[in-house]
Amino acid sequence: MKFCNACGSPLTQRVPEGDNVPRHVCTACETVHYQNPLVVVGCVPEHEGRILLCKRAIEPRLGYWTVPAGFMEIGETLEAGAAREAEEEALANVEIRDLMAVINVPHARQVHVMFRGTLLDGRYGVGHESLEVELVDPADIPWAEIAFPSVTYTLERYLADRADGIERMHLTTVGPMKPR
Amino acid sequence: MKFCNACGSPLTQRVPEGDNVPRHVCTACETVHYQNPLVVVGCVPEHEGRILLCKRAIEPRLGYWTVPAGFMEIGETLEAGAAREAEEEALANVEIRDLMAVINVPHARQVHVMFRGTLLDGRYGVGHESLEVELVDPADIPWAEIAFPSVTYTLERYLADRADGIERMHLTTVGPMKPR
Repeated sequence: MKFCNACGSPLTQRVPEGDNVPRHVCTACETVHYQNPLVVVGCVPEHEGRILLCKRAIEPRLGYWTVPAGFMEIGETLEAGAAREAEEEALANVEIRDLMAVINVPHARQVHVMFRGTLLDGRYGVGHESLEVELVDPADIPWAEIAFPSVTYTLERYLADRADGIERMHLTTVGPMKPR
Repeated sequence: MKFCNACGSPLTQRVPEGDNVPRHVCTACETVHYQNPLVVVGCVPEHEGRILLCKRAIEPRLGYWTVPAGFMEIGETLEAGAAREAEEEALANVEIRDLMAVINVPHARQVHVMFRGTLLDGRYGVGHESLEVELVDPADIPWAEIAFPSVTYTLERYLADRADGIERMHLTTVGPMKPR
């Protein structure tokens, strides 16, 4: 971030009056440009006991597996965003159910919000951000090839809750991927 | 948003390749400037049955009452952000407890995340974004002077859960304030 998106002048970093954190401030019009964490929203779509997973066609973590998830858009709810991502990445019509996990991902400047979901008609396909999409038996989840720690956490909690017959809401914080 | 914050050139609006939504795109360096919802994080701090409320010293809704809440910052967790806002707005040391509400606020391009909290030592003061800060008995909450629908919702659910002796997690969507 080098230039003011309001007037095009160069930015500087300083602590604005009444603030206590350095911000990007315009040297001409004085506009303060805040940076804040982004929301990633997704779901675990289940169909007849199996989970819909997508192999990523884009960086980061191209070639690794994830549940359908992506950046929340302006004007939508979390539930609508989770359904939209399932449609885009897996061409899947998913009924979004309850909120199952809220995950702080501070190193990536993100909060991940995950829902339980039901794949409505068992049909799916390969969206343009996916290399493959598969309904996977829990015993066959490729744990060593999951894209992000938040996805591993979500799948673990989903399956544990299912085994226990209870639908909990989980809150946690994850760090970067451990080198393998 | 009129200029590229990477190179300072004018922006145009168009649908980038592989996308389906118009974005701000730089006419020179082609950088796509996404806009996404922001996270507002807060808590309901309780002390000996009373709730800590702040009268806003800043717009929007200057002079109206709220629980301590504000924009989540880069690098912090939701829990840390909720504690920081209580410290900044009410000079209060609050133990952040469980996640109690996730509230879509699409018209404001926000998601509000609210925790239950405990005011640790009963001490508080008036932070620089507040006009007054008070420990309020639930019977005396100024419902007609609450700043935002998400705060009304949070206080209602907080008190209903307390009356029921159960700590639920609530998910909802709120619209703009109704004109009074």
